[in-house]
Amino acid sequence: MLEKPIITLTTDFGLKDPFVGIIKGVILEINPRANIIDISHNISPQNILEASQVISMSYKYFSPSAIHLVIVDPEVGGPRRPLLVVAEDYYFIGPDNGVFTHIFKEPHTNIFKVINISASHYYLPFRGPTFHGRDIFAPIAAWLSRGVESSRFGDPIKDYALISIPKPKSINKTSCEGEVVYIDSFGNAITNITEDFLKKIKPTPAKEKIAVIYKDKKMRLSNYYAEAVNDNISAVINSFGRLELFMYKGSASDKFNIKTGDKIKLVIE
Amino acid sequence: MLEKPIITLTTDFGLKDPFVGIIKGVILEINPRANIIDISHNISPQNILEASQVISMSYKYFSPSAIHLVIVDPEVGGPRRPLLVVAEDYYFIGPDNGVFTHIFKEPHTNIFKVINISASHYYLPFRGPTFHGRDIFAPIAAWLSRGVESSRFGDPIKDYALISIPKPKSINKTSCEGEVVYIDSFGNAITNITEDFLKKIKPTPAKEKIAVIYKDKKMRLSNYYAEAVNDNISAVINSFGRLELFMYKGSASDKFNIKTGDKIKLVIE
Amino acid sequence: MLEKPIITLTTDFGLKDPFVGIIKGVILEINPRANIIDISHNISPQNILEASQVISMSYKYFSPSAIHLVIVDPEVGGPRRPLLVVAEDYYFIGPDNGVFTHIFKEPHTNIFKVINISASHYYLPFRGPTFHGRDIFAPIAAWLSRGVESSRFGDPIKDYALISIPKPKSINKTSCEGEVVYIDSFGNAITNITEDFLKKIKPTPAKEKIAVIYKDKKMRLSNYYAEAVNDNISAVINSFGRLELFMYKGSASDKFNIKTGDKIKLVIE
Repeated sequence: MLEKPIITLTTDFGLKDPFVGIIKGVILEINPRANIIDISHNISPQNILEASQVISMSYKYFSPSAIHLVIVDPEVGGPRRPLLVVAEDYYFIGPDNGVFTHIFKEPHTNIFKVINISASHYYLPFRGPTFHGRDIFAPIAAWLSRGVESSRFGDPIKDYALISIPKPKSINKTSCEGEVVYIDSFGNAITNITEDFLKKIKPTPAKEKIAVIYKDKKMRLSNYYAEAVNDNISAVINSFGRLELFMYKGSASDKFNIKTGDKIKLVIE
Repeated sequence: MLEKPIITLTTDFGLKDPFVGIIKGVILEINPRANIIDISHNISPQNILEASQVISMSYKYFSPSAIHLVIVDPEVGGPRRPLLVVAEDYYFIGPDNGVFTHIFKEPHTNIFKVINISASHYYLPFRGPTFHGRDIFAPIAAWLSRGVESSRFGDPIKDYALISIPKPKSINKTSCEGEVVYIDSFGNAITNITEDFLKKIKPTPAKEKIAVIYKDKKMRLSNYYAEAVNDNISAVINSFGRLELFMYKGSASDKFNIKTGDKIKLVIE
Repeated sequence: MLEKPIITLTTDFGLKDPFVGIIKGVILEINPRANIIDISHNISPQNILEASQVISMSYKYFSPSAIHLVIVDPEVGGPRRPLLVVAEDYYFIGPDNGVFTHIFKEPHTNIFKVINISASHYYLPFRGPTFHGRDIFAPIAAWLSRGVESSRFGDPIKDYALISIPKPKSINKTSCEGEVVYIDSFGNAITNITEDFLKKIKPTPAKEKIAVIYKDKKMRLSNYYAEAVNDNISAVINSFGRLELFMYKGSASDKFNIKTGDKIKLVIE
């Protein structure tokens, strides 16, 4: 049992209602040593894709053995299964609705199993139909953080749910098309085009040979935000290795009406 | 002294200003072991009824001995008293303005006392007129969490403030009328009608005999959200044992313009 | 090494994206004992002045030895330097863009040094151009909290950046002019006029001799919020020793259209 096991929370519960606090109370009642860290409670309501993206961006920055609760769960109370995912040394707990699709799609070298949580003696004694975050997911996370073996929570399954994730397409060896997949609070538009596409091109293209094309605009890559010209739309390879559209000291999304799903091209000239 | 005593916070301070952080600094300066958990800082400004509801929904999910700070305090700095409430093993600290009305109205079997906090040597040395959360409530909570006896903070009183709470009315043995008392961030409308009303009816009525009537709409009870038909208003007994109006994957409150105070009927046919 | 060293966070990251959670993961990976406290993540995007004000209002309520991370950093990734400020027993970490101006301007009696963080072996091994909060500031804070000497992070500098801060002006011995510098979530308008101005006047003026003048309105000072007449604009010396405009149980800012930068006068009659 770790001294201060980390349990993270990613939900669409918002920050007004007492639901997040209640989940923390339930966890701490079972494991007072748990160190509960909020990743986000402002996932758009019922947005499973957004939750899958957010947890996939985040989990590697936590110690292995951290337990990640992801609760975006419109089918709560019905037949959808509760899952415990063990991927290498990482643990994920949440509903079987595709919320772990990004995690599932990553290459897994060693340990990878998905458990259908069924050991109801670990749940809260009373269970309602609308709040399994409190009644099932939080107590399972807490017991896991106390050292209960993952195999004791249920049996492995293979037919877990997946959702469709937009993937970038190579047009040819020197150009590819992707799309905006996430807009952050600054109004930066993160795409699904990664620096891996650029790294594959040999010899490495000079920056002035790389063009980013969005709507009727063509841009070069900036090295960092402040290098860009004010009030213009600009592009950068961000700190997650993703092509990102931004506006220096402003919201690119607001000013240029960028939406998730908007197409974008990267072209070596 | 507990290893990691829990202190929860429920306030109308919002999450932009430094007020919540300052309160945490004050608590940790007095008791570095305190485990401070946010319940909500987005109570509507000055809404004592909302704060009373939120804390009453939450506190039972925390260990007994947890200390619950509730700071919605429009009369701060004036003659209103600071209170410490001991109800069974639970502790509540906040202003004497009715913010604990739901707690006061619950049946209390053993220990129940309300203390007028007056032991000013436990306050911060400097006290301003606008932020007793920092100067009085936070330090009292911190000292209590260090094991100071509740009786040392002041004398018991009986004339604590109560606010009016909407109660459901039995129309007859098979029907009752209540109202919407809380709308959550999903747009679900929680009413003050509880499942206790249904449990009292013998023999237990079949689901298809139970009607929920709201405005010109008549509904049956769903067992869980996803059972309902999309885009319709629906009803469920939620995980707090309350009758709740909802819309599957949407905001019932927005779509059907539901407001707190709206009347609703439950009828056995 | 402290049992539970405090690291506070003040950023403009908002609470939807995973950036704050990621920073916490990075800190806890390096120092699992760190007690991370949010001051605010809702600083207006790129608003260095606001961040400087918020941290200067807050830090004294935390134990000396607390480490304060302030990340409002529009020039991230470019040549601007990362700083570690040691002021008495307080530690501040953030970009060299003026975000510590209020801290710099305070009188410092003993220890005061500003270090240009350059010891890149304490950074994360991978560093991107858009998120030094994760790659530089968080790990530096974590290593500092583990007891690494401040001098090991880099060399002292004197030419750190400062921003312009609005200061109140004495018109004569009995009147001064200041301005609104911060509007809180309640709509209270905090000014840069402090009670020190009043304290300097001998003999202490009676309350009914003190006039607050804002636009075409003249007010006396209230002792606390509830003393004021409903729906009126009123003034109080708040719990930070600042002259503040407010409306009892309402938002003065909304009702009277108060903005930061608005002029205000305090006059002894």
